Amino acid sequence: MATTTMPQVGLGLWKIAKQDCAQTVYDAIKAGYRHLDSACDYGNEIEVGQGIAKAIADGLCSREDLWITSKLWNTYHAPEHVQLALEKTLKDLGVEYLDLYLIHFPIAQAYVPIEERYPPEWFFDPEAENPSMKLAQVPLHKTWAAMEELVDNSLVKNIGICNYNSALMHDLMTYARIKPYALQIESHPYNTQERLIAMAKAYDVEVTAFSPLGALSYLELDMAGADESVLTQPAVVAAAERLGKTPAQVVLRWNVQRGCSIIPKSTKLERLKENIAIFDFALNDEEMTAISALNLDKRFNDPGHFCQAAFNTLHPIYD
Amino acid sequence: MATTTMPQVGLGLWKIAKQDCAQTVYDAIKAGYRHLDSACDYGNEIEVGQGIAKAIADGLCSREDLWITSKLWNTYHAPEHVQLALEKTLKDLGVEYLDLYLIHFPIAQAYVPIEERYPPEWFFDPEAENPSMKLAQVPLHKTWAAMEELVDNSLVKNIGICNYNSALMHDLMTYARIKPYALQIESHPYNTQERLIAMAKAYDVEVTAFSPLGALSYLELDMAGADESVLTQPAVVAAAERLGKTPAQVVLRWNVQRGCSIIPKSTKLERLKENIAIFDFALNDEEMTAISALNLDKRFNDPGHFCQAAFNTLHPIYD
Repeated sequence: MATTTMPQVGLGLWKIAKQDCAQTVYDAIKAGYRHLDSACDYGNEIEVGQGIAKAIADGLCSREDLWITSKLWNTYHAPEHVQLALEKTLKDLGVEYLDLYLIHFPIAQAYVPIEERYPPEWFFDPEAENPSMKLAQVPLHKTWAAMEELVDNSLVKNIGICNYNSALMHDLMTYARIKPYALQIESHPYNTQERLIAMAKAYDVEVTAFSPLGALSYLELDMAGADESVLTQPAVVAAAERLGKTPAQVVLRWNVQRGCSIIPKSTKLERLKENIAIFDFALNDEEMTAISALNLDKRFNDPGHFCQAAFNTLHPIYD
Repeated sequence: MATTTMPQVGLGLWKIAKQDCAQTVYDAIKAGYRHLDSACDYGNEIEVGQGIAKAIADGLCSREDLWITSKLWNTYHAPEHVQLALEKTLKDLGVEYLDLYLIHFPIAQAYVPIEERYPPEWFFDPEAENPSMKLAQVPLHKTWAAMEELVDNSLVKNIGICNYNSALMHDLMTYARIKPYALQIESHPYNTQERLIAMAKAYDVEVTAFSPLGALSYLELDMAGADESVLTQPAVVAAAERLGKTPAQVVLRWNVQRGCSIIPKSTKLERLKENIAIFDFALNDEEMTAISALNLDKRFNDPGHFCQAAFNTLHPIYD
């Protein structure tokens, strides 16, 4: 059965090591996943493609059954680079088209040729003594127009945005000839983003929550402490006990139940299965409210902070 | 002496009643103010103009001595309306040019003809049973291009923005042919906006802090409680006692000393004098740090909240 709308649970591919990636993708498809959330910047699209190819070869699914998302990296915002970047992603993934292509960040960085460094990552010259982020003078509306051409050329079925805030999104809605299909943002019970999500829905734009388990995504990067986990919160634990589910399932279910899609990452088969087994139970209104009340507007993934710490470049996008 | 750069203290004209306005402007100029912060939306530009005219007629200053700022209202964002709106402001103020014209909010609302309702305010049809905000499909980059034409036509000396966040401002910097002279934002010790201000300065853009006394600006609108005043904070009171100044002067000085301009409002002569008498003393480093540490990221002026409460329109711009 062809997948024409984004399935609510996808496999997030950020931080999956190359050596684990093909097998994880294969396992996930076998476990029922039909939505893969990839990106140039994750550095593993060749291996993602290998997993997809094997799954299709083994008859687990067809290409049309899958919803494959990828993302345009910051260094390819110039209109003349957008299709180049997409074609590299298509080649690496071994597919003819994407279901969804997103602008990864509302940040235009200086171009880095594919043959010079791929993925280009955040900084321009990693050999430099004081590496810094080099910006490019590319307005977002020009990048969007180039994204629209990808749809015109049938290279992608849908286009969208990541890490946009409300004001940027309002502006986009004034100039978009093809409306964004989805907005992907960090969202979990410590960062519920209620107004931004309500606004996106009012514009009829789907919302995908990345890092739906919160701090858990950032422990391995030393960007969060174990004490920042939402999974030990009494409201979460109580719901998990009532329902006979894990705290992680409760937190994922909360996001799905309020209408977001989610892209949890795991390389463990048991965890992959657990993360998608959230459609046979429901949180009650009190539980939904209690989990939403955990909100702290806590953002783990803030490139402004990151760039400042990593290479002394001040580039806030959420301030 | 002609004023060619924005003086650090200006008179904020928001919420000054028509009947007090001409006298207040006159008093302020007499007290040494050379910077007036006006806006179409404040509904008192005719009276501001009367105060200016009397001050000039009485020889207190010349037009060239003054720095006059005004702001483009949301309903005039379409390129064909920008100059119309400016010309109305110039006529009301009785001046030939502005020193600075700002986009008041990054929100494009449906056009309301000047002869129909002026100022048009936030809602489209105040007679409606359920008034709501009507948006217009005008990208910010098109409004900015029309603002640039005002400079080309010598109708304004500088242009700038209000209530933009970091991501919107980065985008603006990619397409601006004429760079913004200033960014005007809410900022006080409960909302220090340190990263946004540092970023604006890195772009060589001046920052004007509105509502520099915080809650005080919002008490009369029932948008803040008296218990939210920063003026009773021990860090502020201690500095005021050491320096023999008022808490308000300490809070205003803090903003000026970190490099922002400020536009406090008052209609009382003594208060007008007090608010500008902040250049003969300095806070020490410990006092600056202690006041900055009061930050709560507390925003009193959030049109998203306001529009939702006032007429059930969800339009966040800071989420």
